[in-house]
Amino acid sequence: MTSIKTPYLIFLGDAPLDMGAKTAEGVLFWRPDYCLGQWRMPEGRLDLGLPSFSFEDAVRNGAHTLLIGVTNAGGRLPDHWVPHLSRAVESGLDIASGLHDKLNDIVPLKETAQRHNRLLHDVRYPPMGRLPMGTGKKREGKRALMVGTDCAVGKKFTALALHREMQAQGRKATFRATGQTGILIAGEGVAIDAVPSDFIAGIAEALSPDNEADHWDIIEGQASVLHPAYGGVTLGLVHGSQPDAMILCHQPGRINVRGLPHRRVPSLKETIAAHEAAAHLTNLEAKVVGISVNTHHLDKDEAQKIISDTEQEMALPTTDPIRFGAEKLVVAIGN
Amino acid sequence: MTSIKTPYLIFLGDAPLDMGAKTAEGVLFWRPDYCLGQWRMPEGRLDLGLPSFSFEDAVRNGAHTLLIGVTNAGGRLPDHWVPHLSRAVESGLDIASGLHDKLNDIVPLKETAQRHNRLLHDVRYPPMGRLPMGTGKKREGKRALMVGTDCAVGKKFTALALHREMQAQGRKATFRATGQTGILIAGEGVAIDAVPSDFIAGIAEALSPDNEADHWDIIEGQASVLHPAYGGVTLGLVHGSQPDAMILCHQPGRINVRGLPHRRVPSLKETIAAHEAAAHLTNLEAKVVGISVNTHHLDKDEAQKIISDTEQEMALPTTDPIRFGAEKLVVAIGN
Repeated sequence: MTSIKTPYLIFLGDAPLDMGAKTAEGVLFWRPDYCLGQWRMPEGRLDLGLPSFSFEDAVRNGAHTLLIGVTNAGGRLPDHWVPHLSRAVESGLDIASGLHDKLNDIVPLKETAQRHNRLLHDVRYPPMGRLPMGTGKKREGKRALMVGTDCAVGKKFTALALHREMQAQGRKATFRATGQTGILIAGEGVAIDAVPSDFIAGIAEALSPDNEADHWDIIEGQASVLHPAYGGVTLGLVHGSQPDAMILCHQPGRINVRGLPHRRVPSLKETIAAHEAAAHLTNLEAKVVGISVNTHHLDKDEAQKIISDTEQEMALPTTDPIRFGAEKLVVAIGN
Repeated sequence: MTSIKTPYLIFLGDAPLDMGAKTAEGVLFWRPDYCLGQWRMPEGRLDLGLPSFSFEDAVRNGAHTLLIGVTNAGGRLPDHWVPHLSRAVESGLDIASGLHDKLNDIVPLKETAQRHNRLLHDVRYPPMGRLPMGTGKKREGKRALMVGTDCAVGKKFTALALHREMQAQGRKATFRATGQTGILIAGEGVAIDAVPSDFIAGIAEALSPDNEADHWDIIEGQASVLHPAYGGVTLGLVHGSQPDAMILCHQPGRINVRGLPHRRVPSLKETIAAHEAAAHLTNLEAKVVGISVNTHHLDKDEAQKIISDTEQEMALPTTDPIRFGAEKLVVAIGN
C-alpha cells in the first residue's frame, strides 16, 4: 500500500501553458489543503495559482512531498528534470510520481534519496514484497464500491464526491484509491491494475480493512466486469471489496467501449445484474443502490432530462454528483 | 510468452530420495520425448530412471535446456547449486526453472549466461516488456478451456489428457499452458497469475492466437470465477480465451476451498452457470460440454460410481480422463 506524506509541493517543471496537468488539478480540486505551493523552472509557464516556493522554503513551511503534477505524452520523465528532483530530495522532500518512467529506476536519484533517507513513490506500480492473498472473510464496517459501464465514466470523481459529502455530514468515511491519480489525491492507495493478478482480491481486501461498524469505505472502482480487457481486474476488486452498496457510474451517449470500437457498451440493466451477481460471492447483501451520470459534456437542461429519464427507467436514485451534489447518492447508500 | 527449447536435461541436484520432483515427473509423464537425461550431484539420490549425462555430453546429444526438476519447501534455489548451473550454461545449455528464487537474480549466473548467449527462463514470472491489451475480437480456430470448482482439481492434467487424445486421433490441437508446471511440460506458455492484472485477458488472447478453422487450443485453466482470492485471474482467462467449449474439472469429496476452510466449494451447477455467463461476453456459443472428475483418491468402484452419478445428475458426459481415457470428453468437445 503506497502511503504518501502530505502536504505537497507541486512540481510543474518547464511545462508550457498548454501542457496537461490533470493530476495536479485533480489534487488541487479535491484536496486543496494538501497543496502548499508550486515549483517551476524559470522557463515553466503552467501556473496553478499556488504560491511559488523554493524546495528549502517549502520544507520550512511544512511540505513533505514533491508531487509531479504534469504529464507529457507517454508519461516520460525528461532527463533535464532529474537534477532538480535530486535537489528537492537533498532539501528534504520525498517525491511522488504517476509517470510511466519510474523515479526508482533513475540510479543517481535513487542513491540520493537513500542517502537522505527520503522516499520515491512510483504510484503507477504495485507495492513490492509479500502481497496478501484474498480470503473472502467478512470484515467489520461498511463499503461502497463504484462500478460502471466502462472505463473513464466518472468512478473516481463519484467516489470523491460521495466521500466529501459524507465528511460534510460528519459521518465516518474514507476514500480508498485504486488508481494512480486517486492515490495522489488521497495520499494513499494501490494501483490495482498493476498488481500481479493472483493478488487483486487480496490487495482489495487490504485496502478496506476491518473498521468501526458505522464507518464507510468509499472505494474507487476500475473498469467493469463486462469489459473484455479488464473484467478480471474489476472482478477481483468486487470480490475483495465485498461491497454493501455499489453506485453505477455511466456516461450517457457513449456507444462503444473506450478504445474498442467493435464493442458496444453494455446496458445499465446488464451492468447492474453482472456486478450484483459478482459481488454476491463475498457479500450476499451487495446491491447497486444508485446511479451516477456523468453529464460533463451536456448542457444543464439535457443533463437534468437524462438524469430524470434514467431515474425513472431504472427505478434507482440518480444524479450527477459533481454537478448537482452527492446528497441523493449518500442517502441511497444509507447508514 | 515464455518459449523454451527442448529436449531437456533434468537437473536433480543433491536431492535426497524423498524430495518432491513433481515438476520432473510431470514433464516425464506427459513429454517423455523431451527428457533426454538427468544430471545429479555425486550426493544426489533422487532418480528418474533416465540416463545420466555430463553437461557436455548432454549438449553433444542434442539437449538444449537444463530443467530444474526438484522443488524444496519455499521454492528456494540453494547457493551450492549455482556453480553447477554456471557450468551448465558454459557448456551450452539454457536453464528453465519454476522456483520462487529467480535465476535472473543471481548476478554471476546471469553474467555467465549473457557471455555465452544462453537464456535463463524463470517460468513463474511473467514476460517483461510491452504486454498486449485484450480486445475481445473473435479469432479463427476453436478453443477448449478447462474450468473448475476450485484450484488444484485437475485442470492441467485434464487439458494434457484431452490434447494427447486429440493428437492420437490425428486432430490439430495445441496444449496451451497458463501455469509454471504446464509451461515446463509444454516448453511454452505464460504464468497468467503473475501477469499485471491489466493484461490477464490480453495475455490469454495472445496465448491462443488465430489459427486454422479446425484447430483446437486446449487451454489449461486456473482457479474458478467463484474463487474469492483468484476469481479475477479466472475471469480474465475466460474472457481472453473466448472458449467454444469448457470442461468442468472437479474433485469429489472436497468440501471447502483449498486454503480457505471457511468457504464451501460451490456446486457443479453454480460453477457451470457462473463460467458460462462469464464466457458469453466474448463467445455467445460458449458452453460447458463435459465434466472431468479427479478420482485419484478413490478405488475403482467408487470412482466409477461417482462418475456415473455425476453424469446422470448433470446430464453431461463425465469421466476421469487420466484413469479411464479422454475419448468421451474429446467426443463431447466435438469438431
